[in-house]
Amino acid sequence: MKKSAEVNNNIIALAQVDPIVGDIEYNFNKAKEYIEKANKLNAAAVIFPELFLMGNPILNLAKKFPLLVQKNVEYIGKLAKIVGKTKVIIGFLDIYNDEYCNSVAVLYNKKIEKIIRKNNVDSIVQIGDKKALILIGSENKTIQKCDFNLIINCASNISRRGSEQNISSSLSSMSKKYKTPLIYVNQVGAIDNFVYAGASRCYDSKGKITARTKSFEEEFFVVDIDNKNNTINSLPKGEEKPLEQAFSLDYKDDLERTYLSIITSIKGYFKKNGLKRAVLGVSGGLDSTVCAVLLVDALGKENVYAVSMPSKITSSRSKNDAKELCENLGINYTEIPIKDMVDSCVSTFNKGFIEVEKKWNDRYEKSFTLDNIQARSRAMILFGITNEFPSAISIATSDKSESYMGYATINGDMSGGFAPIADVTKTKLFALAKWLNKNRTQKNVIPKSVIEKRPGAELAINPKTGKPLLAEEALMPYEFLDEIIWRIENLHQTKDDMMNDIFVYEQTNNISKEQKSEWIDKFFKRMQTALFKWSITPPAPIVDAYSINKTEYNQPITSKIKFY
Amino acid sequence: MKKSAEVNNNIIALAQVDPIVGDIEYNFNKAKEYIEKANKLNAAAVIFPELFLMGNPILNLAKKFPLLVQKNVEYIGKLAKIVGKTKVIIGFLDIYNDEYCNSVAVLYNKKIEKIIRKNNVDSIVQIGDKKALILIGSENKTIQKCDFNLIINCASNISRRGSEQNISSSLSSMSKKYKTPLIYVNQVGAIDNFVYAGASRCYDSKGKITARTKSFEEEFFVVDIDNKNNTINSLPKGEEKPLEQAFSLDYKDDLERTYLSIITSIKGYFKKNGLKRAVLGVSGGLDSTVCAVLLVDALGKENVYAVSMPSKITSSRSKNDAKELCENLGINYTEIPIKDMVDSCVSTFNKGFIEVEKKWNDRYEKSFTLDNIQARSRAMILFGITNEFPSAISIATSDKSESYMGYATINGDMSGGFAPIADVTKTKLFALAKWLNKNRTQKNVIPKSVIEKRPGAELAINPKTGKPLLAEEALMPYEFLDEIIWRIENLHQTKDDMMNDIFVYEQTNNISKEQKSEWIDKFFKRMQTALFKWSITPPAPIVDAYSINKTEYNQPITSKIKFY
Repeated sequence: MKKSAEVNNNIIALAQVDPIVGDIEYNFNKAKEYIEKANKLNAAAVIFPELFLMGNPILNLAKKFPLLVQKNVEYIGKLAKIVGKTKVIIGFLDIYNDEYCNSVAVLYNKKIEKIIRKNNVDSIVQIGDKKALILIGSENKTIQKCDFNLIINCASNISRRGSEQNISSSLSSMSKKYKTPLIYVNQVGAIDNFVYAGASRCYDSKGKITARTKSFEEEFFVVDIDNKNNTINSLPKGEEKPLEQAFSLDYKDDLERTYLSIITSIKGYFKKNGLKRAVLGVSGGLDSTVCAVLLVDALGKENVYAVSMPSKITSSRSKNDAKELCENLGINYTEIPIKDMVDSCVSTFNKGFIEVEKKWNDRYEKSFTLDNIQARSRAMILFGITNEFPSAISIATSDKSESYMGYATINGDMSGGFAPIADVTKTKLFALAKWLNKNRTQKNVIPKSVIEKRPGAELAINPKTGKPLLAEEALMPYEFLDEIIWRIENLHQTKDDMMNDIFVYEQTNNISKEQKSEWIDKFFKRMQTALFKWSITPPAPIVDAYSINKTEYNQPITSKIKFY
Repeated sequence: MKKSAEVNNNIIALAQVDPIVGDIEYNFNKAKEYIEKANKLNAAAVIFPELFLMGNPILNLAKKFPLLVQKNVEYIGKLAKIVGKTKVIIGFLDIYNDEYCNSVAVLYNKKIEKIIRKNNVDSIVQIGDKKALILIGSENKTIQKCDFNLIINCASNISRRGSEQNISSSLSSMSKKYKTPLIYVNQVGAIDNFVYAGASRCYDSKGKITARTKSFEEEFFVVDIDNKNNTINSLPKGEEKPLEQAFSLDYKDDLERTYLSIITSIKGYFKKNGLKRAVLGVSGGLDSTVCAVLLVDALGKENVYAVSMPSKITSSRSKNDAKELCENLGINYTEIPIKDMVDSCVSTFNKGFIEVEKKWNDRYEKSFTLDNIQARSRAMILFGITNEFPSAISIATSDKSESYMGYATINGDMSGGFAPIADVTKTKLFALAKWLNKNRTQKNVIPKSVIEKRPGAELAINPKTGKPLLAEEALMPYEFLDEIIWRIENLHQTKDDMMNDIFVYEQTNNISKEQKSEWIDKFFKRMQTALFKWSITPPAPIVDAYSINKTEYNQPITSKIKFY
């Protein structure tokens, strides 16, 4: 091991940390703790993620609270004062020429040695006996190879389907292209809709991975850049190999990451917002079942309260499935029938709406009023519990397929303090349910019956069958629906494109061109009217490669797109 | 009048148009109609707003639907084919080097003469006998004066408090600086949260205004650039002079614009989304009263249904005020008491929550459960009506002061399809109510009693007074609260700054330092926990200089800012 002056030139610490947005003191103290650890090891440097001192995502925070940015700049000065021989590379938001710049501070020997700004050419720093090029985020500079023999990338990359594959391939290519080792330090943890996986790592000058932190956990991780004997932690299963480019119903390349991502998101949202407990309705259906399992794993079973709220349409199979799930999980469970609430609501409506009808004489013959009364009565009970017990929020259990179709009730099942599975499609939820049964320590908590039955909200009776209306009778087969979503999000396909391609569903089911065309039209029509619902969805982790999450998708509700 | 070849060199048409986002055919046809009108007049040119063919705001639409952008590019080609000697200057979204560019197409004689891209130096176009510099939006180029003798600005500027004053002053300065006449064409109409005022106009080479269209209306407006005898329509009252820079409770410089802005927003949202009718709860309080008047003016009285939904806490004064308002307005009105719904809900909760208490033994002694049951029962009724009658949505009546304080009920009064006054503070609403009584054709529709009473949700009894709890008893005086909001939004003040300044409220009320400090602390604490509610607020027009609207403010819920 080479030693220059007082530090070990080869030893570098990767600070894979989880910030709190806007809590400069917290982020400062966290940085201090990691710097002290790195000092003790005589590391040449300790590297933090992009924008760490402010806490990413900043969104529009800097514009509203400019003093917050000033404070993070001041705290870079404070931090410099505690820095010794171990050089500190840390992301913050600088103010330069009256503009905010995503920057990295290089701190050394009680001083700010240098400020490197994103997209600025001057970005070489001495680290031990190496000259390092600092890159911020996904910055793409035109670089002269001769200037450096190490690349350091401070990042804050959101985890989503395919993101790891993209990051791995671009980092490996870069180290290969410049024949230079590369160190990548990524943020970890969750803020609102955004989940950061960490998975910080090193590459050698041939683009081969030589070290990797754990995914989805805070970690102080030490590497020896020359020595190849570093720890290479595994990635979630499926992320090691290239992503499949066709739609598939097995989802196996993304289930572990989906699970970890949602768990991290729930933990982050609850902890950072001073919350502890979740209340959810369990219907015996797939959505609430998967939510219950995820909540238990994130919050602990004592902090989850499951409420079964049957109406007269609820089948005994559903009630039993809900109960069995809760017993398997060992969570708090109670049954609160909604019959009285629904009855008094119906009777109030019947009396009151006759008056309305006198002025507006085009009342619908058939409506979703009763369906919605049930969903809204349930939400009232769940919100009622959160009003009565400390640190509790209720959970919106609707999924991504339903969100696209607007098939969830406003002030009903789509309301709550958090929506864990709003970016997971129905067929992927089936796959996730099976994965949970197989991969959790406690096996098979989800009753087989839940996984085997076809989904239905049990809010109305299908007059044709006399049984509760199935979702697919109201919409279309989920296998088909989810492939439309996949084609729009990943291939940006039009209706014509879809008509010309063959869906997975068509390979095993014989459907006419007319039927296919009708389903696709129905999809686009329902999607247009669902936009409003997207805009009032509670915070929900981004999971998929593309998301209809309002933070990032940001589409006007009032719009009219002919597809196309 | 000079004539070159076939057109009148001095005659220019300003197309102050209202697009539909993503409806390229609609925008194309609208453009065609205006081009034909301009052709008939042998105008030298007809000028459209920024991004008109796509329809602004685009937000992230281009990323999700790249084919939509391709289509708008194709339609520029189609449009060129119908263009003759009257030159067409029209905003669209170009694709250039694989990137989307906010651009203006110059169409002439059946051809695309030129594409001008924002922030690109090549932007001079021959218009009649003049060389015109084209500016897109608030673009700020370094310009050589010798190159042009006319400036054309295609814009899409959002109307908000102070925006007109800023636009006027910057356009006037620019024409003065370059000693050149200037033509400004702005979008009109509303999309979701955004309202565009139009108010397109011309300046002479001394920076003096020579023509102006109407505000908040579509208009085909013809100007003679040399002749000073053009029409100069008035701006909404107060916008002609510089904005007052101190907080004031009279708001007189912004009431007419606020009114027109909200009306335009309601009209746009309803019409463009195929809606016709609004259902709202009228409590006799200020918020629902002002909403009712605005809805009537935007939708017509036959399309507004007002429902009074008294509980046992509702005072007879409130009931009478609600009824009197509706009679004055001549709108559809009915009373639907919520007693039965509340009772059955309370009884269901009482039975059910005993079970929950067995596992979670820290149930609150006092809670907001009953308050919320009332607000949520009312929302159920309003949503129920929208389920039963075509083209109807319910209205969220909460205001900006309440939003900052989180003083509105989720799934209750903050829920609905549209929130007309979510960006108007309480004290401004009082001023607006008085303004409405004075300035509408029908005077004094708002009962004096509504304007004179102190606001209260009438959801709970104040044990100290035995009367319904006033909002100010739960929060702080609205005059003080609204000044905190103003200071944060306009001056970015910290608590220390506020403690050192004197509030308007303090000039007439004697309050201790401790009291002031307590109110400010309460404000910041409540604001932090209100962030979640902001994220699920229905679409609401931006009215103020700063807005907490999620589209533009975009602050993480999970954040922790010490002020400061």
